[in-house]
Amino acid sequence: MEKLTIIKVGGKIVEEQNSLHCLLDSIADIPGAKVLVHGGGRSATALASRLGIETVMISGRRVTTPEMLDVVTMVYGGKVNKTIVAQMQSRGINALGLTGADLNVISGHKREVKDVDYGMVGDVDVVDGKIFASLISTGVLPVMAPLIHDGKGNMLNTNADTIAAETAKALSAFFDVTLVYCFEKPGVLADENEDNSVIEKITEQTYPELVQNGTVKGGMLPKLQNAFDALKGGVTEVIITKADNVKNLSLGTHIVL
Amino acid sequence: MEKLTIIKVGGKIVEEQNSLHCLLDSIADIPGAKVLVHGGGRSATALASRLGIETVMISGRRVTTPEMLDVVTMVYGGKVNKTIVAQMQSRGINALGLTGADLNVISGHKREVKDVDYGMVGDVDVVDGKIFASLISTGVLPVMAPLIHDGKGNMLNTNADTIAAETAKALSAFFDVTLVYCFEKPGVLADENEDNSVIEKITEQTYPELVQNGTVKGGMLPKLQNAFDALKGGVTEVIITKADNVKNLSLGTHIVL
Repeated sequence: MEKLTIIKVGGKIVEEQNSLHCLLDSIADIPGAKVLVHGGGRSATALASRLGIETVMISGRRVTTPEMLDVVTMVYGGKVNKTIVAQMQSRGINALGLTGADLNVISGHKREVKDVDYGMVGDVDVVDGKIFASLISTGVLPVMAPLIHDGKGNMLNTNADTIAAETAKALSAFFDVTLVYCFEKPGVLADENEDNSVIEKITEQTYPELVQNGTVKGGMLPKLQNAFDALKGGVTEVIITKADNVKNLSLGTHIVL
Repeated sequence: MEKLTIIKVGGKIVEEQNSLHCLLDSIADIPGAKVLVHGGGRSATALASRLGIETVMISGRRVTTPEMLDVVTMVYGGKVNKTIVAQMQSRGINALGLTGADLNVISGHKREVKDVDYGMVGDVDVVDGKIFASLISTGVLPVMAPLIHDGKGNMLNTNADTIAAETAKALSAFFDVTLVYCFEKPGVLADENEDNSVIEKITEQTYPELVQNGTVKGGMLPKLQNAFDALKGGVTEVIITKADNVKNLSLGTHIVL
């Protein structure tokens, strides 16, 4: 099976021009088929603030009022997505910006209200792996914004890590998929204050202890849950690494079943 | 040759939910292959104003500072485009939102500064008709935002009427193309205060007199220039009509060579 790398980039690095350019240079150099999934939360929060719209986060998830949905649709689907697409085109890579609504690539439903009403937040139902595969086969780089649609005409805000994991799973029917989560640290750290303490490998066997002893906690928990979910869905390997290291995927934390 | 209809929609109608829904219902009903090109200027001006960014228009064209480019990229490429795409998907139409950067469908260059510096405004160099035709052949409805890119990593703001005319010309190598400009009036009016005075047909022979006697003036002048430019580029017919009448294209003003 042909290899495919899905790279999720988020945080400050995609929202500052210089760091974004470096990152896109590195991604352009990764050989083989690729999909890019981006975030943009800081820019969304900044725009919301300029518009006098309060940002409410619960357990790290953005409460998405209709006004906030406009903001994230503009920032994720417009500014961040098109900046990346235009930059990739200037590197000779035929990028196509997508939300879940475009070509109906990812549909889902508004998250049911249980303890918390997250508003216009979507949970993924279907990723059309066949369309992704068909685009990729013609040399296209899909660039996914973290937005899906509900099939009833509404856009929904969805976590970019989840979009990346779900897309990786759907594409594992067509490719040998590696999912790469880029973030600020060089991997999962044994000692959170020591960047040299990257845990090279995490398996289903070693994971529970890392949770129990507090090594994996906070925002890293959902990331690891997404990772194991992707692996169980057919993804070959998940790598958590620093964006600076995306050129050398032997670095970082490698997660396998 | 297969028939293709390119519909340019702009103005209030695409920016108000109820009128947009009616318009999209009508467009969904137009038989055969289609391309949709939208504007969004009012929303861009409104967002700019909320952000304290002054909108400067010269001869009906928006001066596009880098800050204003962010605004139009967010509004045209994000909010307006994705609203239309999600709404079309809910009507069972496989819409794909595009800017010129996506799939490199429309590239151009920053307009040279002569008397006026329009800033990040682009003039179209190349429309990739082949990619449009290939998307359309798989049942996709391309939904174009009025943004192109310069191949050097920059987005550029471009007039939606021009995008529609240039796309129509490029597609006339593959289809029998009708270009429809929807706007607030039912067509070109012989008497601007009388909506019943639609001029049914304008040709290259009758056009000069309409300009000379002041019937065609103001914002209608560039629209008509775009229309004749499209016709000379291979487009079969251009229709200027009211959005409400888009279902019945025998109404409106028909422009032919």
